[in-house]
Amino acid sequence: MQPFELSLSAAATEISARRLSPVELTDSVLARIEATEPRLGAFAHVTDELARKAAAHAEQEIASGRYLGALHGIPLGVKDLYDTAGVPTTSSSAVRAGVVPDTDSASVEQLLGAGMVMVGKTHTHEFAFGGITPTTRNPWDPGRIPGGSSGGSGAAVAAGSCMVGMGSDTAGSIRIPATLCGTVGLKPTYGRASRRGVASLAWSLDHVGPLTRNVTDCAHVLNAIAGYDRRDPASVDVPVPDHTAGLDDGIAGLRIGVPSDYFFEHVSEDVEQAVRTAIDVLAGLGAELREVSTPYAEQILATEWAIVYPEASAYHQKDLRAKAELYLEDTRLSLEVGELVLATDYIKALRIRTLMQRARAEVFDDVDLVVMPGMPFAAPAVGATEVTWSDGVTEAISSALIRLTSPGNLTGQPVLSVPVGFDAAGLPLGMQLTGRPFDEATVLRAGRAYEQVSDAVGRIAPVG
Amino acid sequence: MQPFELSLSAAATEISARRLSPVELTDSVLARIEATEPRLGAFAHVTDELARKAAAHAEQEIASGRYLGALHGIPLGVKDLYDTAGVPTTSSSAVRAGVVPDTDSASVEQLLGAGMVMVGKTHTHEFAFGGITPTTRNPWDPGRIPGGSSGGSGAAVAAGSCMVGMGSDTAGSIRIPATLCGTVGLKPTYGRASRRGVASLAWSLDHVGPLTRNVTDCAHVLNAIAGYDRRDPASVDVPVPDHTAGLDDGIAGLRIGVPSDYFFEHVSEDVEQAVRTAIDVLAGLGAELREVSTPYAEQILATEWAIVYPEASAYHQKDLRAKAELYLEDTRLSLEVGELVLATDYIKALRIRTLMQRARAEVFDDVDLVVMPGMPFAAPAVGATEVTWSDGVTEAISSALIRLTSPGNLTGQPVLSVPVGFDAAGLPLGMQLTGRPFDEATVLRAGRAYEQVSDAVGRIAPVG
Repeated sequence: MQPFELSLSAAATEISARRLSPVELTDSVLARIEATEPRLGAFAHVTDELARKAAAHAEQEIASGRYLGALHGIPLGVKDLYDTAGVPTTSSSAVRAGVVPDTDSASVEQLLGAGMVMVGKTHTHEFAFGGITPTTRNPWDPGRIPGGSSGGSGAAVAAGSCMVGMGSDTAGSIRIPATLCGTVGLKPTYGRASRRGVASLAWSLDHVGPLTRNVTDCAHVLNAIAGYDRRDPASVDVPVPDHTAGLDDGIAGLRIGVPSDYFFEHVSEDVEQAVRTAIDVLAGLGAELREVSTPYAEQILATEWAIVYPEASAYHQKDLRAKAELYLEDTRLSLEVGELVLATDYIKALRIRTLMQRARAEVFDDVDLVVMPGMPFAAPAVGATEVTWSDGVTEAISSALIRLTSPGNLTGQPVLSVPVGFDAAGLPLGMQLTGRPFDEATVLRAGRAYEQVSDAVGRIAPVG
Repeated sequence: MQPFELSLSAAATEISARRLSPVELTDSVLARIEATEPRLGAFAHVTDELARKAAAHAEQEIASGRYLGALHGIPLGVKDLYDTAGVPTTSSSAVRAGVVPDTDSASVEQLLGAGMVMVGKTHTHEFAFGGITPTTRNPWDPGRIPGGSSGGSGAAVAAGSCMVGMGSDTAGSIRIPATLCGTVGLKPTYGRASRRGVASLAWSLDHVGPLTRNVTDCAHVLNAIAGYDRRDPASVDVPVPDHTAGLDDGIAGLRIGVPSDYFFEHVSEDVEQAVRTAIDVLAGLGAELREVSTPYAEQILATEWAIVYPEASAYHQKDLRAKAELYLEDTRLSLEVGELVLATDYIKALRIRTLMQRARAEVFDDVDLVVMPGMPFAAPAVGATEVTWSDGVTEAISSALIRLTSPGNLTGQPVLSVPVGFDAAGLPLGMQLTGRPFDEATVLRAGRAYEQVSDAVGRIAPVG
C-alpha cells in the first residue's frame, strides 16, 4: 500500500507514531496527482512547491515534539471558491482570472493552522453554478461526470490525490460529487462552519464542508472548521462538541426515519436496492426504523431555485454589468434570469422554506435521523442532459442532480453522504443521513456504525 | 388617587395584599375609558363585559389563595393587530372587518394565562403601515398625534385607560407612541417574544412588546411574553432570565455609549437638552460615558423601506388582488410600490442590514448600552406633514417619525423608551436605551435606575 492510499485517520496514526513522515506522504500524493491529473482534471492549480515546504515544516515540528493532532501533515485539496493567501483563487471563472487573495478563507486558515498541507485548488463549475464540473472526469469511469459543483474535490479524494477535499454546498454540491465519486461528504448545519472568504452562490443556502475517505476523517475536519465567526453573518454561536468522541458508540435504539415518498421516487433500481440494503444494515445494528413523510415535497425545487437565482444575481450584479462577456453563457443566462425575479416572489419562497423547516422539525420529534438515497442514479455519462425513468417521465439531469440534496439546503440540517456500494458497471452509489440542526454528532455516529460493517466506504478509484 | 392611576406594580402590591380587588380596579379603568374615549379614540373595541367577567374570576381565584403573580387582575389593552379569541380583530382595516379569531395570539395567551384582564383592543394605523394612528389623539394635547402605529396603546396607557398596552414595532411603532405619549415602551430583541397570531407588517423586522407606565412594569410583562415558540419562525431558543431580578442593582460602572452623530442630528433643542440632561443623570448614577458612532447611518432609511415594502406586499398580495378597494389609499399605494421591488434590490438591503448588525456588534465591544433621543421632536400637530429644521432642511413627518427608531429594527437589538420630561408646551419627550441582543436585563436595569431619580416616568395625562 502506498501512502496516498491511506485515509486521514490511518495516515495520522502512522504520522503520530513517526512511522510516516509528512514529506513522504505529500510526495506520494503529489506523484499520484501527476499520474492521475491527465485523466481526471481535478485540480485548477497544484501547489506542489508550497506543499513540499509545508510538509517539511510539519515534519520538523513533529520531530520536535509539537504534534498538533490528527490533521497535522495531511494533504488537503481546496475547492477553488475558497480564498487561499498567495494562491490563485478563480472560482473556475475568467471573471476572476489572476485573482490572488491576501488572506485565507476561515476554513483554510483553520485547517492550515491545524497543520494540514495544501496540495492544490480543486475545480468547480463556474462560481459553483452547476452540478456537473465540466473540467473534471469521474475517477471510476472517465466517460462519466464527477458531479459538482465540488467535483474536483470529489474526484481528487476518490482518486487518492488528497485525503480531504473541501467543498461547498448550496443545492447539494458537496454531496453530489461525494455520492457519484464514492467518498464521504458532510454538509454541516447552516451556520455551523464559517463561510468567510468563500465565494458565494446563494448566501442563505451556502454551506462549507469536507469530502473525505471515511466518516472518522470527516469528524476530524469538522472539529477544525466548526465554530462561531462573527464575520460570517450566518454563523451561529452554539457550543461545538468533539465530534470524534462517541463516534464508535453504535446506534442501538436510534430512531431512524425512512421516507415513504419523494426520496424514493424516480430513483434507479440499483440505487433503491443498495440504499434499502444499507437501511437493513442500520436496523441490524440496532436502529429502530420508522416511516416518515417529506413535508412540502412539491415545492422543493421551485423554492430552491427562487432563492438561488436572485441571491446569485445580487452577488454578481456589479461584475455582470462590468464584464458580462467573461462569464460562461449558462452562468450568465442564469444570473440574468435572477435579475428579473420580484422581491415578493423571493419572499414567498423564503416563507415556504420556513414552513418546510417547521414541518421538518416536527418530523424529528419522532426520529433522530432520516436516511435517504444520495443521488437518483450513478454518475451520468459526460454530455447527458436528460434521464428517462421507468414510468416514461423524462427529467433534466440538472434537476435530477439536486432533487434529493436541495431539501437539506432548504432546511439547513446536517447531512452526511456515505457510500453504500457499486452498481454493475462499477460506479459508486450512496446514501444521505440527515439529523437535527447542530446534531452532526448523531449523523456521524450512524455513518461510522455503517462504515465499520461495510466494505463500500474508503475505496480508492483505480483511475484507469 | 383612583385605582386607574396606579401602575401595574403598584396595583399588584395592593391586589396581592388584598387591599384592592381586580373588580374594583377594572371598574375604575373602564370608567376612565368611558370618560376619556370621546377625546382620545384609543380603542377600536372595548371589551367591558369580558373584562368584568375576567376581573370577577381573578378576584375569586385570588380570594381562594390562587394568586398568579404581578399580572393577575391587571387591566390590559391589546393592539388590534393581535388575534384575540372571540373578540373582533381587524388591524384597523376594512379588509378584516368582521374577523373574529378562534384563538389568541401567543402574547395574549400568555398574558391572559398570567391572569391579566383585557379591557379592549387598541387602534393602529391600518395594518401598522404608518406612524401616526389617525383615529387617535395624543392624551396630553388633542391637537397632537399620539404617534403610531401602536398609537391606541400609547394613548390608553398614558391616559390611565389600561396599565399595559401591547404594541408591535417594525420601524418604531412601540417606541414612537411611547415617546410621544410619555410612557415606557420596550421593543425586545428580534426573536425574543413570539409574534404568532399577530398580523405582520414586515416579518423580518416585526417585533411585539409592551407599553407600560414604568420600567418595572415592563419587566413583568417581558417575563410573561418572552420565550421560544416553534410556531414563530423568527423565535430564538435562548434562556429567559427573570427580568425583575437585579432590576434595582444600579448602573455603577456600566459603559454607556453616546452617539456623536446621526441620533443628535435634526432633533429639536428641547429634545437634545432633555436627553443630554438624562445622560448626565445616568453618569451621576455611576455610568461611564463613551462616545460612539452609528455605522451605515446613511443607509438606514433606504434599507428599512427596501425591506418593509416588499415584505408587506408579499403578506398582502392575495387580499390586494381580491379586494384592493377595501384598503386605505395610502396603504394600497405602499403595497403596490412594494410589488415592483426586484429581489436583487431586496437582497442587497438584507446584506446591508447584515453589515449594520456586524458593525453594531463591534460598537458593543466597548459599551454595554447606547443611549439616544426617542424622537426628533415632541408630538407633531394633527395633519402636519413636514418639519423644517433650524438649518432650513425640510423633512417629511413620516420619515422623521421612524428615523431614530428604525436602526433598532434593522439590528434587532432590544430598545427601551423612557420618558425624560416635558417641553414648554407640556408635551412628553423621551430617550431610547439599546443593548446587546437578548440582554434586555441590562437595558431595563438602566431604565429603572433612571426612573428612580426622575419624576418624568409614570405620569398620567389629564386628558383635558
